[in-house]
Amino acid sequence: MQVKAYGVAANARPLEPLLIERRETGARDVAIDISYCGVCHSDLHTARGEWGETPYPCVPGHEIVGTVSAVGDEVTRFKVGDTVGVGCLVDSCGHCGSCKEDLENYCTNGWTGTYGAPTPDAPGHTLGGYSHAIVVDEHFVLTISHPKEQLAAVAPLLCAGITTYSPLRHWNAGPGKKVGVVGIGGLGHMAIKIAHAMGAHVVAFTSTPGKRQDARDLGADEAVVSRDEAEMAAHTGSFDLIIDTVAASHSLDTYVDLLQRDGTLVLLGVPDQPHPTPNVGGLIFGRKTIAGSLIGGIAETQEMLDFCAEHGIVSDVEMIEMQQIDEAYDRMLRSDVRYRFVIDSASLAKDVAA
Amino acid sequence: MQVKAYGVAANARPLEPLLIERRETGARDVAIDISYCGVCHSDLHTARGEWGETPYPCVPGHEIVGTVSAVGDEVTRFKVGDTVGVGCLVDSCGHCGSCKEDLENYCTNGWTGTYGAPTPDAPGHTLGGYSHAIVVDEHFVLTISHPKEQLAAVAPLLCAGITTYSPLRHWNAGPGKKVGVVGIGGLGHMAIKIAHAMGAHVVAFTSTPGKRQDARDLGADEAVVSRDEAEMAAHTGSFDLIIDTVAASHSLDTYVDLLQRDGTLVLLGVPDQPHPTPNVGGLIFGRKTIAGSLIGGIAETQEMLDFCAEHGIVSDVEMIEMQQIDEAYDRMLRSDVRYRFVIDSASLAKDVAA
Repeated sequence: MQVKAYGVAANARPLEPLLIERRETGARDVAIDISYCGVCHSDLHTARGEWGETPYPCVPGHEIVGTVSAVGDEVTRFKVGDTVGVGCLVDSCGHCGSCKEDLENYCTNGWTGTYGAPTPDAPGHTLGGYSHAIVVDEHFVLTISHPKEQLAAVAPLLCAGITTYSPLRHWNAGPGKKVGVVGIGGLGHMAIKIAHAMGAHVVAFTSTPGKRQDARDLGADEAVVSRDEAEMAAHTGSFDLIIDTVAASHSLDTYVDLLQRDGTLVLLGVPDQPHPTPNVGGLIFGRKTIAGSLIGGIAETQEMLDFCAEHGIVSDVEMIEMQQIDEAYDRMLRSDVRYRFVIDSASLAKDVAA
Repeated sequence: MQVKAYGVAANARPLEPLLIERRETGARDVAIDISYCGVCHSDLHTARGEWGETPYPCVPGHEIVGTVSAVGDEVTRFKVGDTVGVGCLVDSCGHCGSCKEDLENYCTNGWTGTYGAPTPDAPGHTLGGYSHAIVVDEHFVLTISHPKEQLAAVAPLLCAGITTYSPLRHWNAGPGKKVGVVGIGGLGHMAIKIAHAMGAHVVAFTSTPGKRQDARDLGADEAVVSRDEAEMAAHTGSFDLIIDTVAASHSLDTYVDLLQRDGTLVLLGVPDQPHPTPNVGGLIFGRKTIAGSLIGGIAETQEMLDFCAEHGIVSDVEMIEMQQIDEAYDRMLRSDVRYRFVIDSASLAKDVAA
């Protein structure tokens, strides 16, 4: 089937209306009419060709919420009319050690991203959620139990939510634990909400004094301005876990110093320019660790969605129409969004694709 | 009491015979006649003033084995004639979180090193094992159950042994685990022996092709020449744990790439020149961690000694007389020792201190 989409047709082209092909709904497939799609930094980097070779046409979008429009014969978990989500992954090998442990996000044979990844379907790579519909293997489709009126704000949970939930769970955020969140943006604001709901004592770090109250409003117990040395020093050696959402190059030692013994600094973003090399002594004198974490597995994503529904957690979003995407990207680069743009997919109908 | 020692009397002096004062044996003290003392790289750096301000006189040595010569009234765990050991620590605060968890090596109020650390005793800082006797609080004295004829080779367990045993235990080396050891020196050769005894599949990494057979003789299942790219590539994504004993600046990415998902690279040495900054993507795509580890706690040191006695593990040592220490340091700098020098403390008697 042909569906309306928005993307980059070829190198150096702007984002514009496109018509794309979706595969027929296979035996294990779920066809989804997309209602909302969140806007992630990855979309911007890919659309603008900043992450190496972008395959064209490029249709970004991997924070997808919609309604099931058709299901294949072998689909057991979904029926037409269900409210569902799709995140960053639409396939994986299914048989490696990671896949067998429900960690498809670490598939050692390479998982299939929701856009820009090789697939047998036309045009040879996946096309994402800036579109009216998508067809996805049911294994990669999530059930959404939030109230209908929250669905737009649920979309960012599919990437920003799981990317922060997964390390918080893995490194045991919870009651009695002091958890730091560096950066109050798309990822950071979700990390604050989720860590708070998990029962941790949450401290937000921001370079912007003006975001201090915002951080508290999101659920942080404390907010620290990271450029204020005295404020930072007051937290030396006290954190169990720090979730660092800032991809810009910065000192890791600053946060390693705030960890207590056996504490972990988890990096979620790959910096364009490398961080300064961390001080090895800072790790040794305290058995501290620096780790990385990537999205989360599908079972864990479902667990996150259920957890967020139960705790009334959604993203703070600003709705846009599809045609506003370039402006949204520019504002996102300036961190001028609280805290995630979400596309109202109905707006796609306004354009007539070339 | 005055005892013969060997040390550096003042800045820019050579190592030479000294007479030092040991405190009277207090109620909780154990006085020890030293039989053997291992030679650690830390000794060299401290004696030669390469680690900042060395307080003089400086008497190095923190791999001490000897016989109890006296005990204080309140000492319950030791009696005269017992064979005992002393490692890198002779005191800690005793009441911080780390001390209460038997991790005195991470005492947040600063543990007292066996040499060069502030103490109320004369001359105001601790004096180490290059001496005929030492007086130590019983909490920091270890029981040695190895056979008498192995005692010289037990001495290096007190630093090199525990420094490798602790991270191997903490990060769960054992059956079914693939453990790498980078560098086959004083620490590395102990890591190979201990990891092998723990039941792990052990792979040794060396830059020296000639050490390949040595690594196998020490208990490594495989030995890899780290400069051979094809050999290294064959191990990509396969390790649970890599213990990196090399303090010279080197690429950490080389070893992060060899880790499997959730694998840990543990750094034991602080490099003089920083390592190149690690690739954050290498951590994120695999939820991998880079950690540091420092010696081990006292209870864990006892556990290590008992484990080594049970498994017949000692260090491979080359005996020297105290007067050969400068030559030993020079050879150590060239990695020309298999794998640890140990001082026969009886040789101290040959000199008449100034």
